[in-house]
Amino acid sequence: MLLHLCTWTEVEAYLEQSQGIILPIGSTEQHGPTGLIGTDAICAETIAHGVGEATHALVAPTINVGMALHHLAFPGSMSLRPSTLILVIRDYLTALSRAGFTRFFFINGHGGNVATLKAAFSEVYAHLVDLNVPRADRVQCQVNNWYLCSTVNKLAKELYGNQEGSHATPSEVALTQYVYPDAIKQAPLSTSVSQEHKIFGAADFRRRYPDGRMGSNPALATPEHGQQFYELAVKELSGAYLQFLAGE
Amino acid sequence: MLLHLCTWTEVEAYLEQSQGIILPIGSTEQHGPTGLIGTDAICAETIAHGVGEATHALVAPTINVGMALHHLAFPGSMSLRPSTLILVIRDYLTALSRAGFTRFFFINGHGGNVATLKAAFSEVYAHLVDLNVPRADRVQCQVNNWYLCSTVNKLAKELYGNQEGSHATPSEVALTQYVYPDAIKQAPLSTSVSQEHKIFGAADFRRRYPDGRMGSNPALATPEHGQQFYELAVKELSGAYLQFLAGE
Amino acid sequence: MLLHLCTWTEVEAYLEQSQGIILPIGSTEQHGPTGLIGTDAICAETIAHGVGEATHALVAPTINVGMALHHLAFPGSMSLRPSTLILVIRDYLTALSRAGFTRFFFINGHGGNVATLKAAFSEVYAHLVDLNVPRADRVQCQVNNWYLCSTVNKLAKELYGNQEGSHATPSEVALTQYVYPDAIKQAPLSTSVSQEHKIFGAADFRRRYPDGRMGSNPALATPEHGQQFYELAVKELSGAYLQFLAGE
Amino acid sequence: MLLHLCTWTEVEAYLEQSQGIILPIGSTEQHGPTGLIGTDAICAETIAHGVGEATHALVAPTINVGMALHHLAFPGSMSLRPSTLILVIRDYLTALSRAGFTRFFFINGHGGNVATLKAAFSEVYAHLVDLNVPRADRVQCQVNNWYLCSTVNKLAKELYGNQEGSHATPSEVALTQYVYPDAIKQAPLSTSVSQEHKIFGAADFRRRYPDGRMGSNPALATPEHGQQFYELAVKELSGAYLQFLAGE
Amino acid sequence: MLLHLCTWTEVEAYLEQSQGIILPIGSTEQHGPTGLIGTDAICAETIAHGVGEATHALVAPTINVGMALHHLAFPGSMSLRPSTLILVIRDYLTALSRAGFTRFFFINGHGGNVATLKAAFSEVYAHLVDLNVPRADRVQCQVNNWYLCSTVNKLAKELYGNQEGSHATPSEVALTQYVYPDAIKQAPLSTSVSQEHKIFGAADFRRRYPDGRMGSNPALATPEHGQQFYELAVKELSGAYLQFLAGE
Amino acid sequence: MLLHLCTWTEVEAYLEQSQGIILPIGSTEQHGPTGLIGTDAICAETIAHGVGEATHALVAPTINVGMALHHLAFPGSMSLRPSTLILVIRDYLTALSRAGFTRFFFINGHGGNVATLKAAFSEVYAHLVDLNVPRADRVQCQVNNWYLCSTVNKLAKELYGNQEGSHATPSEVALTQYVYPDAIKQAPLSTSVSQEHKIFGAADFRRRYPDGRMGSNPALATPEHGQQFYELAVKELSGAYLQFLAGE
Repeated sequence: MLLHLCTWTEVEAYLEQSQGIILPIGSTEQHGPTGLIGTDAICAETIAHGVGEATHALVAPTINVGMALHHLAFPGSMSLRPSTLILVIRDYLTALSRAGFTRFFFINGHGGNVATLKAAFSEVYAHLVDLNVPRADRVQCQVNNWYLCSTVNKLAKELYGNQEGSHATPSEVALTQYVYPDAIKQAPLSTSVSQEHKIFGAADFRRRYPDGRMGSNPALATPEHGQQFYELAVKELSGAYLQFLAGE
Repeated sequence: MLLHLCTWTEVEAYLEQSQGIILPIGSTEQHGPTGLIGTDAICAETIAHGVGEATHALVAPTINVGMALHHLAFPGSMSLRPSTLILVIRDYLTALSRAGFTRFFFINGHGGNVATLKAAFSEVYAHLVDLNVPRADRVQCQVNNWYLCSTVNKLAKELYGNQEGSHATPSEVALTQYVYPDAIKQAPLSTSVSQEHKIFGAADFRRRYPDGRMGSNPALATPEHGQQFYELAVKELSGAYLQFLAGE
Repeated sequence: MLLHLCTWTEVEAYLEQSQGIILPIGSTEQHGPTGLIGTDAICAETIAHGVGEATHALVAPTINVGMALHHLAFPGSMSLRPSTLILVIRDYLTALSRAGFTRFFFINGHGGNVATLKAAFSEVYAHLVDLNVPRADRVQCQVNNWYLCSTVNKLAKELYGNQEGSHATPSEVALTQYVYPDAIKQAPLSTSVSQEHKIFGAADFRRRYPDGRMGSNPALATPEHGQQFYELAVKELSGAYLQFLAGE
Repeated sequence: MLLHLCTWTEVEAYLEQSQGIILPIGSTEQHGPTGLIGTDAICAETIAHGVGEATHALVAPTINVGMALHHLAFPGSMSLRPSTLILVIRDYLTALSRAGFTRFFFINGHGGNVATLKAAFSEVYAHLVDLNVPRADRVQCQVNNWYLCSTVNKLAKELYGNQEGSHATPSEVALTQYVYPDAIKQAPLSTSVSQEHKIFGAADFRRRYPDGRMGSNPALATPEHGQQFYELAVKELSGAYLQFLAGE
Repeated sequence: MLLHLCTWTEVEAYLEQSQGIILPIGSTEQHGPTGLIGTDAICAETIAHGVGEATHALVAPTINVGMALHHLAFPGSMSLRPSTLILVIRDYLTALSRAGFTRFFFINGHGGNVATLKAAFSEVYAHLVDLNVPRADRVQCQVNNWYLCSTVNKLAKELYGNQEGSHATPSEVALTQYVYPDAIKQAPLSTSVSQEHKIFGAADFRRRYPDGRMGSNPALATPEHGQQFYELAVKELSGAYLQFLAGE
Repeated sequence: MLLHLCTWTEVEAYLEQSQGIILPIGSTEQHGPTGLIGTDAICAETIAHGVGEATHALVAPTINVGMALHHLAFPGSMSLRPSTLILVIRDYLTALSRAGFTRFFFINGHGGNVATLKAAFSEVYAHLVDLNVPRADRVQCQVNNWYLCSTVNKLAKELYGNQEGSHATPSEVALTQYVYPDAIKQAPLSTSVSQEHKIFGAADFRRRYPDGRMGSNPALATPEHGQQFYELAVKELSGAYLQFLAGE
């Protein structure tokens, strides 16, 4: 169930059965010469919709723009400040908590979001207490990075070995190819790509990773791989969601 | 061109020809017993994509959650605080301005966003000067409410007369029916619906407008109407966008 | 009744009869070569005092500096950021709401304030709920632009036709002449004045409107006109205030 | 020269001769059963206008609402949060500094403003450097409490001895009587009034000082005294202003 | 009792007997060619620990970095913005108030902190009310500057006369020598040192006070003096703390 | 070299040789019935001082209070909001960056700080660019959790096996025993301690972990163990610091 395609009365009915909701969060940032700027949002959204279907869970609208300040030296990249993203999460969860939701399951497509999301969760727990929101003490948030699913990781290693890299990876590119087969891009990719993992500011990032990739070879991606990744992630995260709901 | 489906090198090339970008902004809020919670985002996004195609303009990802605090007494509604939304807009436009964009054309689907958007524009102009962003003094923002297009209004009046109302209107519902024919909802609609226009806080809103509608009869909506609204809005806003780009 | 000239015990007594208060808000910004920098604050304050007298309403101190960032390229102009003005309004209304006021009637003299004021109202309604302020759900805010009163507009059109313009207008200048006849300024006014309405950042504003006027000919103003505008505005807004109080 | 009664071209001319400006700041808060809620703003404004005349200095509009959180348990009192007031001062001085002003002379009527004003000055100095405002390193701010003028203090001691107290004092009440002789209030004043000076939160303040006075007997005030205080304060602060301008 | 060396169960027991806590606050800023950068924090912490011992009071961890923006032109100086320090104090006192503490006794080592601390106290009182913290109306904060203790001042005058100055004073340097005898620094000190007291921005400060001292001759300091200052301050502030606790 | 025990001229000299600085960050929070509230700050500070000595690096004052909102249901715990901590880090690094520091090596004693620290780093990189701080693009921050040092982990596993747990661990308690042998606490410890790792809000934390421990048996700690942990951490982190400085 997509929240956007529900009426408020349907949400009211849903809340009588479940207080859980899935929130996809991605990013809008360069993904190398062939990766889509929306890669992280597309992956998170697609998988979240799959998990929502599989578990009959409500799925909130995707947070398309995340924390990608380090990518801003590449045109087309967008970002929220961490301090802004914390406020966005706070506003989202305040509204939803007041309505009765208590379990917030974020499906995340971008490593750069994780720290800020976790910081935001702490801020939210305290904020809800400040507001005397009923059942504030029952609210739980969890971030789930689809690309860290063990089954996803295993397949990525099998398919790409150390050419998976850590940004603009073939696995995430494959998933976008599966979702948007008409938007598969071709461009020459230098074979000498930095194997570093360091991330500091935006200018530094572009100096270190001139075409935007971090150790990856996205030319290995295929839509068929993408489908596999999709299915593995949906399966693994569906389990994780149900476990999250069932947990104390 | 959807920013999400571009690579950064494509954006780099685009910027050599145009410094304009279209930003859809909607809302995630109740739209009466039959309207989709995502109505405003769906409408804004669909039309923005149409305008992007028609004018070869780049379209940023949709801001799905807007300023809808007054709807929060209905479950499923979400909102940013005005002060948060200002920061979001500031972060978006700072990133894009630094990359070279100077013309920001918002296509808006929700009346509640307008005041905050305009406030944000003022904040952004000053902020870019504070940051010494090159060409800060050339940055222009404009908000365009699709539902206020003269051709759209004219058709709505013809089709629905005073049953158009001002929230959960048949015209916006029709547009979502056109986009998501599988998500057309049925529910009994009381014929006695408040003809007021007052909007204050969330509890007050629900007291005044118990099922969420403001003077509207969305049962009049059809997908065919939706297509007409779509085409009129795309045409009118495409003209407006080109005029915006051409303006000094 | 001016709040500034009351004691707290008088306010306590007032609150037993009425929970309404009038808040004048203006601006401190250039008004062309002959308009006073305080024009918007002077007009709002004068009319608010008149309405207060006519309706026996309490009038709060004038917010002299509003949102005028776009005028800052002219010396003497001052402004709050929209985000700051929102906090100011929040602090004002929080204090007054806790004391028992529930109806906030802003009389505004500056178009640039409107968006931020409306954004602030939304922020305030939610903030008061967050604070568990008693009767938070009964709080109502309304902004009333004296220059948009129908009787004022009608007279301006009769007296000035299209030379009324949209900034540093003869009508507002006339009103300040009525209030401060000793501060009537003379300066040569170019007859070729931009008929545009566009407003973006401060540097852009000064490029577009080199002497600060927007399409207006303030040389047409007289103190006698000013008195007429004053009387019309007070009458019309007094009616509006009483209706606001009487409304649900 | 009142900024509100100048045109921008007059300010432009003024700036060629002087970079100083006087900013009156008061408060809107209870002043006991007979003191006006606007006492602090009225005193600061009146004296500032006098100093402006005496020294040919420009006087900015009065900040009517200051930091008076501790008075909020008395109806009619208003306040900015310290954090809000800091932003207000920052916005004011940023606008004026960009225009060329460098010497900001605050005439203050309320003890509760002092700490926040001083904190704001520190914030502003750093902020202007952050913005690369030209001549940021020459900006100087000074707060001057009229009630602490040595000549004022001396007279107050002569006239009222220890009945001057520290809030709703006869000296400040006298000054408002001089300015607004038609708004002189009468009310029975208990002779047993707390001689404490402690100030914590609002509820605590009202418990300690049930009618709002702190050790004062405002019944001793007369308009004639008020005129004397006015003249002494204007003279002493005019000297202080000229010295401030002349200082390195 | 140092909070850092307690367990939570010990704090729980302490709260049954006392709701008071001592909070040392210093600064990290240049103190001339021979003064330690940590001078203000060292002094505040040492004295606070002494007062804690003498009065069996709990002592919170030292706020090492205060409001020292005006010292930032000297390397090694650090500072919080006033607006940041207000939030820090708010967070500290909110946590402690929720646990049951109501009396917050700050021992301060830096004049530049005072204004912001006082502003923060006002903000905190109101904030605790907003959060409905139990006993919010009983919370009291007090700032105590050890260097303003009358016994300390008297001794400083006796020992140093007008060579005490107002920054990098021999008295505070002596105290750090007593605490850290191994960190006594030697450097040539110009005898012509500004006798001014003006403090504006950082660049201005360094122009006025080129080696960082304000009218002081820290070469007069000895560890023995330091011990005397320590003992006087501990004695006087212990009395002040007990009085603070005993006060209504 | 401890920054607090340096003069500004010593820092000036240091900066000619190195642009690195070590910043210890801990927390002030419950550590079970026998762990010190200052455990995390004590550990971080002690190790940071050791690393500073070993590498001749400058060590900034310890951030004693970190992000520990989830511990606030235990008295004596203190915390900054994540949003506040971000501002604190921003202010610290802005001051130090302007002075010429570019490598910020945080030694951290508390898992709850990590997310916020990383978010803060991103915020800082962008902020320094906004301020046009020279060499902003060379600034690098790194967080190093002493308890995650591989040698530390190995020893903890050897000594305590699965009784190490994840909060109030014997390893951190041992380290505080080594530093403060006079503050070793005894209290009965239930042997049935939750083996969970979940952390949400403060009330939930106390429900899950009634005495504050997470799966740990701190009774196993000895001061001798503490010394071993100290030496291992200093050695490993000294290497990490030198590598950090040497890195591009």
